[in-house]
Amino acid sequence: MLKVDLNSDLGEAFSIYKMGLDEEILKYISSANIACGFHAGDPMVMDKTISLAKTNNVKIGAHPSFPDLLGFGRREMKISFDEAKNYTLYQLGALSAFAKAHNTKISHLKAHGAFYNMACKDEMLSLALCEAIASFDENIILLGLSSSLMCESARKKGLRYANEVFADRAYNEDGTLVSRSIKGSVIDDEQEAIKRVINMVKNGKVSTINGKEIDIKADSICVHGDNAKALDFVKNISLELKNAGIKISSLEELV
Amino acid sequence: MLKVDLNSDLGEAFSIYKMGLDEEILKYISSANIACGFHAGDPMVMDKTISLAKTNNVKIGAHPSFPDLLGFGRREMKISFDEAKNYTLYQLGALSAFAKAHNTKISHLKAHGAFYNMACKDEMLSLALCEAIASFDENIILLGLSSSLMCESARKKGLRYANEVFADRAYNEDGTLVSRSIKGSVIDDEQEAIKRVINMVKNGKVSTINGKEIDIKADSICVHGDNAKALDFVKNISLELKNAGIKISSLEELV
Amino acid sequence: MLKVDLNSDLGEAFSIYKMGLDEEILKYISSANIACGFHAGDPMVMDKTISLAKTNNVKIGAHPSFPDLLGFGRREMKISFDEAKNYTLYQLGALSAFAKAHNTKISHLKAHGAFYNMACKDEMLSLALCEAIASFDENIILLGLSSSLMCESARKKGLRYANEVFADRAYNEDGTLVSRSIKGSVIDDEQEAIKRVINMVKNGKVSTINGKEIDIKADSICVHGDNAKALDFVKNISLELKNAGIKISSLEELV
Amino acid sequence: MLKVDLNSDLGEAFSIYKMGLDEEILKYISSANIACGFHAGDPMVMDKTISLAKTNNVKIGAHPSFPDLLGFGRREMKISFDEAKNYTLYQLGALSAFAKAHNTKISHLKAHGAFYNMACKDEMLSLALCEAIASFDENIILLGLSSSLMCESARKKGLRYANEVFADRAYNEDGTLVSRSIKGSVIDDEQEAIKRVINMVKNGKVSTINGKEIDIKADSICVHGDNAKALDFVKNISLELKNAGIKISSLEELV
Repeated sequence: MLKVDLNSDLGEAFSIYKMGLDEEILKYISSANIACGFHAGDPMVMDKTISLAKTNNVKIGAHPSFPDLLGFGRREMKISFDEAKNYTLYQLGALSAFAKAHNTKISHLKAHGAFYNMACKDEMLSLALCEAIASFDENIILLGLSSSLMCESARKKGLRYANEVFADRAYNEDGTLVSRSIKGSVIDDEQEAIKRVINMVKNGKVSTINGKEIDIKADSICVHGDNAKALDFVKNISLELKNAGIKISSLEELV
Repeated sequence: MLKVDLNSDLGEAFSIYKMGLDEEILKYISSANIACGFHAGDPMVMDKTISLAKTNNVKIGAHPSFPDLLGFGRREMKISFDEAKNYTLYQLGALSAFAKAHNTKISHLKAHGAFYNMACKDEMLSLALCEAIASFDENIILLGLSSSLMCESARKKGLRYANEVFADRAYNEDGTLVSRSIKGSVIDDEQEAIKRVINMVKNGKVSTINGKEIDIKADSICVHGDNAKALDFVKNISLELKNAGIKISSLEELV
Repeated sequence: MLKVDLNSDLGEAFSIYKMGLDEEILKYISSANIACGFHAGDPMVMDKTISLAKTNNVKIGAHPSFPDLLGFGRREMKISFDEAKNYTLYQLGALSAFAKAHNTKISHLKAHGAFYNMACKDEMLSLALCEAIASFDENIILLGLSSSLMCESARKKGLRYANEVFADRAYNEDGTLVSRSIKGSVIDDEQEAIKRVINMVKNGKVSTINGKEIDIKADSICVHGDNAKALDFVKNISLELKNAGIKISSLEELV
Repeated sequence: MLKVDLNSDLGEAFSIYKMGLDEEILKYISSANIACGFHAGDPMVMDKTISLAKTNNVKIGAHPSFPDLLGFGRREMKISFDEAKNYTLYQLGALSAFAKAHNTKISHLKAHGAFYNMACKDEMLSLALCEAIASFDENIILLGLSSSLMCESARKKGLRYANEVFADRAYNEDGTLVSRSIKGSVIDDEQEAIKRVINMVKNGKVSTINGKEIDIKADSICVHGDNAKALDFVKNISLELKNAGIKISSLEELV
């Protein structure tokens, strides 16, 4: 039976600030990437989010960021290999304490924002992520952009990894995402997005922005829970995947 | 054979700022309390400090603080039980990641500054520390002021704990420390301080500021490595303890 | 003609987090207390909020806090006189730069959260606030709890100050607010709250929680814009004040 | 009479951490660039540093940074024009409050670390600095790398600016600094460094790393007070400048 993981960024509240419909989206996804305090999240939020994820039987992942609370981790920073590795270890460890306290564990790790985007292309950063995982717990799965340098680094280091795809983003011929600044980079038509996802999972193919069909590996689909519309999309994609005979499964079962 | 632990606060550098003669003092102590980023320390410093401690065969402890970088964790804050517990878990987990990466583990936990002082008297805070430890790893030893509420809470919760004494501080008749604002609160005479420590370890007794002798339990002695003079004192106390037939031992062997 | 100021805490967004219906409430109030980055607000938010306030012809006030982003400035901290003064100066100066950039100026200052509550009772903190104002710009009006030590300190120092009252809070016989932990501390009935406010402004009287009527000085009424219901209340109070022949005026015209 | 400004980065202590021999170097320099809390410095340190600078009759400058306390502001960050402008305004305003409190004022502004280095080459960042100054106080002098885009932007915007040179750094033929990663980039020979500086000030010339002589404009020389050796160099350069008939003067007298 075909399987795919649905992942989403959660626990991005901070202090008294709210963010995202975490309680709702947890009913549909299989993997939660939980903020660890560097771009969002704080010890109170982390504790609550892990508790919610566990109740919903959703796997817990660390979502480490550059240290940039003011910029929500979305801004490029030029940090060294050691900094990238140690920042990742710090956040991974902090989250793991809450996992332990709730008798569960970290299943995966997905870098956040600018850290993710840079590590897709920057071998040094991708290796830092891998070394952090390897030195902490080699069972942890690195979730990275499908066919990116990030996944390639994990493969070389002998780590488990999962190829992530985006339902609502256009692809270039080389498998990279079309930059958001380019027209057509975001797929607004929900039915079109769902069709694309099912094609990626079933056939390992996606149409590029130029109309060509390329190979793509889809272990996990990134979805969002920021607002009611995004949540509706997750419900629909979840339903349509099941209708297409695709089981929503944890990364553990997939890689 | 009589045994006692020597503990010191380490890894209190931050960013490019230096603090303490960590490399020197590690030769003499048995337990290092390592800052976890809330009052001092950062991921780079934590990584380096754990590496140094391991090389010197010194046990690693978490040194969690109130979130007060500006005040070096020395200012009282009124936080809730859940905040105290979750802040402790966060810092404990973060440090444990570096311990794992260096194939070692956290042996003990000592609260820092105002957190320590308040938890000596505030049952809610002391229980928050205990619950954080219990839910993370019940083998971790709570290091608290000798005979304080902190140690009492650990005892009640069935946790391992160690009674800490201070070589250079005067005691009240009820076993609490004489406030620093009172004349005579700090023992400046090094030989006097060493005599007092040996009396505490050998006979379980200490003279109070009023000249009375009271019972005191001394599992661990707190020493400092801030400057050359402090370091000399540590060398001397270490030597005199050995001369008195007292072995400097890890908390593991003591409690 | 009777006059009163309506003040509200604004600019409490942070990073990508939203907070409050600032654009809406600015239509009804005369004074905006703007967060300065220590509990909420950041340079982007401060710039935008000052621009909005100026457009709506609303006076700009600094809203300094203890340095406690994690706790939204709501937690008591034990800081020194110099710390309180310098933290206030830092925040006042930072906000004033945006005021300058928008060709306007700081009219008043109201401490936030725990800083406000503590400074109502703690002379040292209230004097620190006064000294910060006096050394920065003695035209700035200190907005403090009516008849509190905070206002008394300002009076003694020769500073301008304004007595703040709360529409939705019960009062003790000594003019202090009934603690939120006590039943009846919050006035839920909107009409009742409006009647009380008009009585305070017109007659300088308020009924205490015990049914006694006491004197109260009401220069400014604190209102909230957190949600639609709060905003409705502000609209109504604004309307009813006008109907009662009371003009909503800036603090400048009042003190 | 020939004149030149000597500037140094001061007030880079933080919390209980010390940094630099501020009290010593203030005897020799004419301009102090004071950290504003984003890479170093805090309200207590800023207050003390301004007081010291004023006592020594040294001009006060703001030294704004990227928001990167963990990296001491030395790491490149990709921030927007509005972020760069508003971060600068925030820091400039915060420092100006302490200047006001000490009855003095901000004379100049020099960006710190990565912000400085990037703004030398990035027009957007250099214009953000200029707009922040222009909207706060157009009398403030921008201190930038001699002949860089930063100075050029100030010139275009009609702002006052000063050309900064480095005594201990080698220059490329285009007037930029030789990267620290290249051999020979730092001039270790103190006498050589002093000769170069005097040549820059007297003749407006400097020998490049390739042996060519190029034109250079030297309004201000950057010196350091991190340690005893650096301080000795400042004493010597100060003495040799006087011997060469060059007066150490504030930027106000120079531009």
